[in-house]
Amino acid sequence: MRILSGIQPSGAMHIGNYFGMVRPMISLQDSSDLFAFIASYHAMTSIKERASLEQNIFETAVNFLSLGLNPEQATFYRQHDVPQVLELYWILSTLTPMAMLERGHSYKDKVAKGIKSSHGLFSYPVLMAADILLYDSDIVPVGKDQIQHIEMCRDIATTFNDRFGDLFTIPKAQVSQDTQTINGTDGAKMSKSYDNTIDIFCSDKQLKKQVMSITTDSKGLEEAKDFDNCNIYKLCELFMSDDELQQLQQRYISGAEGYGHFKLTLLETIQDNFQKFKTKREFYIDNPDKVEQILQAGALKARKIADKKIQSIRLAVGLD
Amino acid sequence: MRILSGIQPSGAMHIGNYFGMVRPMISLQDSSDLFAFIASYHAMTSIKERASLEQNIFETAVNFLSLGLNPEQATFYRQHDVPQVLELYWILSTLTPMAMLERGHSYKDKVAKGIKSSHGLFSYPVLMAADILLYDSDIVPVGKDQIQHIEMCRDIATTFNDRFGDLFTIPKAQVSQDTQTINGTDGAKMSKSYDNTIDIFCSDKQLKKQVMSITTDSKGLEEAKDFDNCNIYKLCELFMSDDELQQLQQRYISGAEGYGHFKLTLLETIQDNFQKFKTKREFYIDNPDKVEQILQAGALKARKIADKKIQSIRLAVGLD
Repeated sequence: MRILSGIQPSGAMHIGNYFGMVRPMISLQDSSDLFAFIASYHAMTSIKERASLEQNIFETAVNFLSLGLNPEQATFYRQHDVPQVLELYWILSTLTPMAMLERGHSYKDKVAKGIKSSHGLFSYPVLMAADILLYDSDIVPVGKDQIQHIEMCRDIATTFNDRFGDLFTIPKAQVSQDTQTINGTDGAKMSKSYDNTIDIFCSDKQLKKQVMSITTDSKGLEEAKDFDNCNIYKLCELFMSDDELQQLQQRYISGAEGYGHFKLTLLETIQDNFQKFKTKREFYIDNPDKVEQILQAGALKARKIADKKIQSIRLAVGLD
Repeated sequence: MRILSGIQPSGAMHIGNYFGMVRPMISLQDSSDLFAFIASYHAMTSIKERASLEQNIFETAVNFLSLGLNPEQATFYRQHDVPQVLELYWILSTLTPMAMLERGHSYKDKVAKGIKSSHGLFSYPVLMAADILLYDSDIVPVGKDQIQHIEMCRDIATTFNDRFGDLFTIPKAQVSQDTQTINGTDGAKMSKSYDNTIDIFCSDKQLKKQVMSITTDSKGLEEAKDFDNCNIYKLCELFMSDDELQQLQQRYISGAEGYGHFKLTLLETIQDNFQKFKTKREFYIDNPDKVEQILQAGALKARKIADKKIQSIRLAVGLD
C-alpha cells in the first residue's frame, strides 16, 4: 500500500505540527510504502523570495530527518527533483474542466484571506493530482480542507482512464480525525499565526520563555488546581505516560505547588523528549552534504518510478 | 536574432496555409536563428485522440521538411521533446495573475465557439510564454489574434526579471500584415472549415477535383473575361511571374478560351510547383526513421539551451 504525503516547506516547527502532522506521518513508514515529498513547487505559490524558499526547503528536510523520517524506509524527496510531475500536470490540465477548479473551496478561501490569486494558486489542485497519480498512490492523508482536492484528483484520473486506458490508480483520502487539537500557550489552537507556539528546535532560553508564557487561571500556590482545564496539563498529556499523568494530577490537587512548578515540569519534559532530535538536527545542520545526499537518493528512487510512469502516459496520449 | 515560431500539428495542408504561414516562416531560416517547433503539448487542448495526435505530429513534421524547412539552418523540434518547458510553465504560473488570463480574448473566443473550456486551454498563454522565454526569443511572428498573448508574455517576463534578476529577453511580436488573404475555391478565405481548400499533398485526382470546383461567373467561351475578379486568376497570381500573368491576362481578354482552360492551366501550375515537394514528401513518408532522426537532432539542440536556461532559472528562484 503506497501512501503519499506532501510537506509544505514552511520553516520553523512547533509541537502542534509535530503531534498533529509530523509524528503521524512518520509513523506510516513502518506499515506502508510511504512517499514523503517536500512540496517545493507548490510552495512557490506563497513563498516569493529566493533565499526563503531555499532555506525553508533545507530546514524542512533537516527537521523531518531529525524527527525520525527514515530515508531507508520511506521515499523522501524534493518535488522539484522530479520535474516529470509537471509534464503530468500539463497533461491532466487538458482534461480538467475549468468549472471544476472554479468550485475549489481552498482557492477561494486563500484569496479571501488576501493571498494573491495567481494562476499557480488556482491550478494547485491539478499539480496535487499529478503528485498523487504519478506514483500510483493508494492513500493520501489529508485534512478536511483538502478532501475536495482528492475528489478532483479522482475525477481527473477517471476521465483519463476512460479516455486513454486504465493507467492510474484511483486514490483514496484518509482524513485525519483531528481528535487531538493541540492547544498553544494561550489555550487556542497552536499556530504560528496566533503567536502561541512552543517551538521544537529553538534555543533553551526561547523555549523557557514560551513555556513560561502559558496562560493559567490565577489560583494561588496552596489552592487545589483543576488540571482538566489547565493549558499546562493539556500539553503534558502529549508527552507523559498514564502513570506520570496520575502523579502530576496529585500535584495539581495537593495545593503544594504553583503553576510555575508545573511549567518547569513541562519544560523539562519537552527538553527530555526532544533532546535526541535536537542532537540529530545539529548533526544535519552541520552536514548539509549529508542531507543533500539523502535527498538525492530519494529523488533517484522517485524518478525511476516517475520516468516509467511518464513514458506509459506519453505512449497512451500519443506523445511518443 | 532568434525568431520562435510554433506550428499547430493540424494535419493536411492547403495552399492557403502554405502561402499564408508556411513559406513566410521557412523563409526566416535564411536571415535569422529560427526555432520552429511542433506544438504537441498545446495540441492536446484540442486533439483528444491518441492516434490523431501522433499522426498529426508526424505529418506536420513531414510537411514542413518537404516544403523546405532545413533542419541544418533552423532548430526544428517537437515541443514534448523538451519537457523543461513545463517546468518553466509552472514557475511562470506562480507569477501570473488570474485576472490577466481571465482577460484573454483568444480563450473566450474559443469557448464561445464551443471548444470545451479545460484548464489547459485557459492557461495556454502561460505555456506559450514559457515556449518563448525558455529560448530567449527576440521575435515571435503572430497573427493579430495572438498579439495579446505576446503582451502577456512580456508582462510575465518583466515580473520575473524584476523579482529574480534579468534572466529573460523580453520578446517582440512581429504581426503578419495579412496583406495577402488567399481565397478558396468559392472565393472566400481558404479554410478547412469552409471546405474550399486546394490541398498540397492530395492525389492528382483529388487536386483536379478541387481546382475544377472553383466558382466563376457564367461567361461563355467567346466572351472577354474579367481576370481581376476571377478566383482562378487570383490563385494563379500566387504562382506566376509577371510575364506569365500578362500572357494569362491576354487569354482572359481574347475570348478564345473558357474557364475550364484556365483551370487546367492553374492545375498544371500547381502540380509543377509542388512536384518537387511531393517527391520529397514521399521520401519522408517512406522513411519515418529519418524524420525521427531529424527531430531528435533538433530536440538535442533545443534541450541544450533549455537545460542551461532552466538551471539558471532554478538558481534564481531558489530551487537548486
